[in-house]
Amino acid sequence: MIRLTIIGSGNVAQHLIKAFSASSLVEIVQAFSRKKEALTHLLDAEKIITDFSALKETDLFIISVSDNAISEVSKQIPFENKLVVHTSGTTSIDVLDSKNRKGVFYPLQTFSKNKTVDFSIIPICLEADNQEDYDILETTAKSISNAVFSISSEQRKALHVAAVFVNNFTNHLYQLGQEICEEHQVPFEILKPLIQETADKIKTLNPAEAQTGPAKRHDSVTTDAHLDYITDENQKNIYKILTQSIQNNGKKL
Amino acid sequence: MIRLTIIGSGNVAQHLIKAFSASSLVEIVQAFSRKKEALTHLLDAEKIITDFSALKETDLFIISVSDNAISEVSKQIPFENKLVVHTSGTTSIDVLDSKNRKGVFYPLQTFSKNKTVDFSIIPICLEADNQEDYDILETTAKSISNAVFSISSEQRKALHVAAVFVNNFTNHLYQLGQEICEEHQVPFEILKPLIQETADKIKTLNPAEAQTGPAKRHDSVTTDAHLDYITDENQKNIYKILTQSIQNNGKKL
Repeated sequence: MIRLTIIGSGNVAQHLIKAFSASSLVEIVQAFSRKKEALTHLLDAEKIITDFSALKETDLFIISVSDNAISEVSKQIPFENKLVVHTSGTTSIDVLDSKNRKGVFYPLQTFSKNKTVDFSIIPICLEADNQEDYDILETTAKSISNAVFSISSEQRKALHVAAVFVNNFTNHLYQLGQEICEEHQVPFEILKPLIQETADKIKTLNPAEAQTGPAKRHDSVTTDAHLDYITDENQKNIYKILTQSIQNNGKKL
Repeated sequence: MIRLTIIGSGNVAQHLIKAFSASSLVEIVQAFSRKKEALTHLLDAEKIITDFSALKETDLFIISVSDNAISEVSKQIPFENKLVVHTSGTTSIDVLDSKNRKGVFYPLQTFSKNKTVDFSIIPICLEADNQEDYDILETTAKSISNAVFSISSEQRKALHVAAVFVNNFTNHLYQLGQEICEEHQVPFEILKPLIQETADKIKTLNPAEAQTGPAKRHDSVTTDAHLDYITDENQKNIYKILTQSIQNNGKKL
């Protein structure tokens, strides 16, 4: 049984608390939140602390706070030689205070407050300074997920950049699609099966193989007609640049 | 029972043939293909014709060929006052030869040769010149899909442009994500659950609500770090423009 502490009360912290609470292989001893009421719907009140001096010693401290606060929070932990990890996709393992053993426990998923997720399929990317610590992280991660990976800080940077493309930017394209629909009184609903299928396709095809559409076909009659049709300069600009990128097969211009 | 003819042998034509073949409410009388062998895996050889003079009269002729060939093909149909439709998202109903009654039968989905699709959830966008013809198209569409919509040529243009954003461009972002992973020896597999979740989210949230990430948070430390990390000029350019667009909430710059 791994006894652990969660520090933070944001989206990722809350999803981790839910997932660990459902596992019999780990125990959440305490969670730290600046405001107690942020976590009372998830944990017994006596487990929620608001002062670092109330922290108990456990096997693992998981810091899940905004990236720029990780370093400072790691200094606040009043212990030495404990295993302390953060959950950030972009932050190096080295920002953690070196009085403790360092690691990373990065669940690669997009978490929304209002949507539950199936943690068992969420990839968790782990990093530690030595094998013994890695084993603790691996046991902890496997208690909630079937997709656990050893990923260095350098690889994690690449993953996070790639995640911005496939998640943040993709979602923004959905938004632009919705705006184009609404501007012309077309229900965005009509596009939802297409959006699902686009994501489903790459389970079996690689994205380059799955690419279709006027840009891919170099069908300039259609791409020109689309550019004439789009009135918004921002949409037009994005249309041009992504069309070019498809036609160059994602290569440098 | 609606008796119909498919003209064309590409992806869309083949998926339509498969879907109609499975329906007891319509009958494919003939299909036209320039090369007979393109369709012999789907239809009895005697139903496949390679010469327009062999066309029989049916209730509905569905032209599913490349956009720039629709007009010419519609002229080749050796009948008058028949219902003739095309399946294009971008082409006006008016390109069809006016010796016949005109319509549009546009299944809004991305079709790949090597992937079967569940036609029942594919939206089919219909347009006709009169109610009687619309009814024929509606009966035909409902024989294979539960999502049938009346969409004017003008609305269809908007839908197609929006579809390019949410499908073609999204898929290209997947490709860029994969390239970033491969460049840094990270398995692209790790990102696949995130891609699924990104698409799943908008079943319940609208895209603007679902938006997360450093651009949305105006976290310039992270976006600057990402831009430093990306070496490819094309990727860098796309990163900048989509980050700006998220920060302007998709509005004109």
